[in-house]
Amino acid sequence: MNSAGPTRLVLGMPSYRASAARLAAAAGYAYADVDIHTFPDGESRVRLPALLPDEVVICVSLDRPNAKLVDLELTAATARHLGAGRVVLVAPYLCYMRQDRAFHPGEAVSQQVIGHMLARQFDTLITVDPHLHRVHRLADAIPVRRAVALSAAPLMTKWLAANSGQPLLLGPDAESEQWVAAIAKPAALDYGVAHKRRLGDRDVQIELPALPFAGREVVLVDDVASSGQTLIEAARRLHDVGAASVSVLVTHALFVGDAVERLNAEGVIRIASTDSVVHPSNEIALAPLLARSLAQSV
Amino acid sequence: MNSAGPTRLVLGMPSYRASAARLAAAAGYAYADVDIHTFPDGESRVRLPALLPDEVVICVSLDRPNAKLVDLELTAATARHLGAGRVVLVAPYLCYMRQDRAFHPGEAVSQQVIGHMLARQFDTLITVDPHLHRVHRLADAIPVRRAVALSAAPLMTKWLAANSGQPLLLGPDAESEQWVAAIAKPAALDYGVAHKRRLGDRDVQIELPALPFAGREVVLVDDVASSGQTLIEAARRLHDVGAASVSVLVTHALFVGDAVERLNAEGVIRIASTDSVVHPSNEIALAPLLARSLAQSV
Repeated sequence: MNSAGPTRLVLGMPSYRASAARLAAAAGYAYADVDIHTFPDGESRVRLPALLPDEVVICVSLDRPNAKLVDLELTAATARHLGAGRVVLVAPYLCYMRQDRAFHPGEAVSQQVIGHMLARQFDTLITVDPHLHRVHRLADAIPVRRAVALSAAPLMTKWLAANSGQPLLLGPDAESEQWVAAIAKPAALDYGVAHKRRLGDRDVQIELPALPFAGREVVLVDDVASSGQTLIEAARRLHDVGAASVSVLVTHALFVGDAVERLNAEGVIRIASTDSVVHPSNEIALAPLLARSLAQSV
Repeated sequence: MNSAGPTRLVLGMPSYRASAARLAAAAGYAYADVDIHTFPDGESRVRLPALLPDEVVICVSLDRPNAKLVDLELTAATARHLGAGRVVLVAPYLCYMRQDRAFHPGEAVSQQVIGHMLARQFDTLITVDPHLHRVHRLADAIPVRRAVALSAAPLMTKWLAANSGQPLLLGPDAESEQWVAAIAKPAALDYGVAHKRRLGDRDVQIELPALPFAGREVVLVDDVASSGQTLIEAARRLHDVGAASVSVLVTHALFVGDAVERLNAEGVIRIASTDSVVHPSNEIALAPLLARSLAQSV
């Protein structure tokens, strides 16, 4: 890039432009849209600014990921081709983290395949609350040179202080315990985790822990809400045992299909989320958290 | 694979199973479906037979390609992971062949990006009538070890002999001349090519060559029909100059949106295509052609 241009640039993918622009503003980077035209035959024509600085940050949310991954491949390869020396992926919601092994013989270990696909294109990955399970380190899932897993927990603690009384926090399963504790402890909130049995994509059973829920303001916290079935079952149990109110606070608001309507029908009074996935429930902007991480990763 | 199993296997991707099974039958290979489950959040779970022979042929049509390319990446990587020594892609319709350079500064050269993505996974590629333009050799677009571009022209000559009288063949543009000639000459049919000006995705102008169209049975031949706009304009001009009938014969029947209805409205009496893309107009099976190529590429 000529010397008059910016030295760092955030590029926003079409479905995530507003959040990407907020990140650029918070980080003090220049911003540009990635222009993607879809031809009638379903192919994409991707266009970037022709003059790129050495550091290019591509910002995208990888919910409903398949078509987006091809646009991202086209974008990242083109950034390299146009001369970017360092290409950073900021994907606050990272896809394909759950399929981290072959649960049946012959199954794709999607986390590894998609991880390697991303690692070929990007030097650095920054994400938030990745749903890691059996593979514990993000760099083992996405083998980029620098992989940063941020946590939205501090932002959630702050949000709860401003938007609730002294709620009791409930995580959906044993896996979530550390994360729920990280939200609850700084504010000295009561918390616990349920026991979850998954019987199918949309079929889960929830067993509540032995806590005094009666009369309490309960906030269900989770990293990702997809079909919402876990939250719906938990809300039902909580009302059964006399909770005064049930709210939902999640990092990644996928909420596919009629998940929100069904949560409302179950008497959930409030749903809040970070803007990792664009959704009407977004109340917590991740831009400041992501911008700090960008500054540290230069 | 254990010694009792087949030594060669065709795997059919979900959208192309019937054609893939026909290929396996024609080639004398075993056949299995690639099982793809779509989770509520839009991610794919891909499953292959757990025991694979050394040679695996993955058969897919890459129309409407973006989501399919990710499923294909998951499938091919998993075939390798499960021990396949040689992974062949049979993609009778190959995507992203047209964007072979940056037409404006900053544009992705999609042909190269997607070509490299495929070349990382596959040893051999077999396709039919790829829409190559400025890049003339398939191996320069998709840098696999062995890239085979078959032509449907001989099958089209045969189809015309069985399904028409002595038609006059018309190609849409100067690029198509060699291909139209290859269909017409073996049967000593008259042929010519039009002059095409593309003004936008769905906006083209067609100028007919100086041939005696009046009273003739005219067959418009093209490699790929997408919006159908070129064929629609050509059919209109041909009726203007008194053609007795206008039919359409294409290799790749994308026919997006209402293309077929608009062709019918323009008085096109018959539309025929190969089964490279699954479409109601499919009349020419590619399986024998593809199977011969598979036998030669072992």
